Amino acid sequence: MDNVARRIESLVRNGELKPGSRLPPEPQLAALLGVSRSSLREALKGLVFLGLIKARPGHGTYIQASLGRAASRHFQWMLLLKEIKYLELYELRQILEPAVAALAARRATKSDLDSMELALRGMKASLQQPEQFMVNELAFHEGFAQASSNVAIQTTMQMMYGALAEGRKRVLPLIDDMLRNYQRHERIFIAIQKRDVRRARQAVIRDLQFAKALLRKDLQAQEELRAKLRRLEPVSLGTKS
Amino acid sequence: MDNVARRIESLVRNGELKPGSRLPPEPQLAALLGVSRSSLREALKGLVFLGLIKARPGHGTYIQASLGRAASRHFQWMLLLKEIKYLELYELRQILEPAVAALAARRATKSDLDSMELALRGMKASLQQPEQFMVNELAFHEGFAQASSNVAIQTTMQMMYGALAEGRKRVLPLIDDMLRNYQRHERIFIAIQKRDVRRARQAVIRDLQFAKALLRKDLQAQEELRAKLRRLEPVSLGTKS
Repeated sequence: MDNVARRIESLVRNGELKPGSRLPPEPQLAALLGVSRSSLREALKGLVFLGLIKARPGHGTYIQASLGRAASRHFQWMLLLKEIKYLELYELRQILEPAVAALAARRATKSDLDSMELALRGMKASLQQPEQFMVNELAFHEGFAQASSNVAIQTTMQMMYGALAEGRKRVLPLIDDMLRNYQRHERIFIAIQKRDVRRARQAVIRDLQFAKALLRKDLQAQEELRAKLRRLEPVSLGTKS
Repeated sequence: MDNVARRIESLVRNGELKPGSRLPPEPQLAALLGVSRSSLREALKGLVFLGLIKARPGHGTYIQASLGRAASRHFQWMLLLKEIKYLELYELRQILEPAVAALAARRATKSDLDSMELALRGMKASLQQPEQFMVNELAFHEGFAQASSNVAIQTTMQMMYGALAEGRKRVLPLIDDMLRNYQRHERIFIAIQKRDVRRARQAVIRDLQFAKALLRKDLQAQEELRAKLRRLEPVSLGTKS
């Protein structure tokens, strides 16, 4: 299957297939690649799953025009399989976000600033609704990443935020002052809007310090919960191993 | 298919399936998830393609123990589809690598230093064989990323290097002094080995400046080639559109 996928890749490379364009019908594509229709169909399913091509039932199969979001699944799985730890993602954030803040302060377009401002307004309006607040906060961070005007950076940030999403849900109840949480983001926005590189960096670093402290509080709470559970079930644990 | 995949994910999340462990036989797994065997089989193929599970013919299907490398395909496709430009990847390198140098100088283990040294020796031994040199240079950069002791960072770097690989092949003939190219890497290694954070950063920044200059030279050469081809084929171009 992988082999067929690579040959479809090479058609894209040669310009014979373009982003957003439709793949030839199965019989032709199978003949073109010199493979059986059943091998082709499997390869296509794999590519659809990977998000590289898109099947529109009744309309055929298309080369995906945009891939950004699909990449975050890998990070999510790596977290799930405990290959990556939350604190490692925060270290990556600490490297990327201040640099993105600097790029954003230099490059943000009117439309980037508009997206961030809209998300900020959404955050302010949902100070009492944590779920809704989080949706807007994520939109704010995506606008922030987009303002770097660099798709490689933006994709990396999307992967990172996607992987962090579950953890964020868990720490949200630990934020005791949503207004101050909102204000930390407002400060980032104002610095970018004023093209103030130094302040944009500082505002982001301050937000990250808060986020990391929150994560540590959550990890500690989880550890205490586990310890409590261990005390409650001494027998069932004793029978294991 | 996506839905079945998500439910397999949730089995991993609950700890019912562990990284590296074997999935239950198809009939049981289908019953467990309440789906038909044919839907299950499709979902599994998708997960295999994505590199999240691994099929060992005759032995069953296993949850992948490690995912690092698979993630780089997304970046490669995005480059291919022109969503990401090479210069954007260099900007990402400029953000990540100096920070990784600092982490590596603080955290590199004996085994990290050994891998980097081995790769360096391979580079020195293949100054006259560009292909072989490149394999060793990539191994050096992977050892460097690993020395950050952060899997999230390491995975991001792998994605980036994987996507850059094709471009590197193209710029290699443009390097006129392979010995100096080797020495730039040796300087990075020595600084990390001496735990000298500042020098490690500087050595990496110098290597990146060289790499970026090389890329610009290559992009310019390509542009000139295209202009030349346009002059050679005025008629065939005129008949298009």
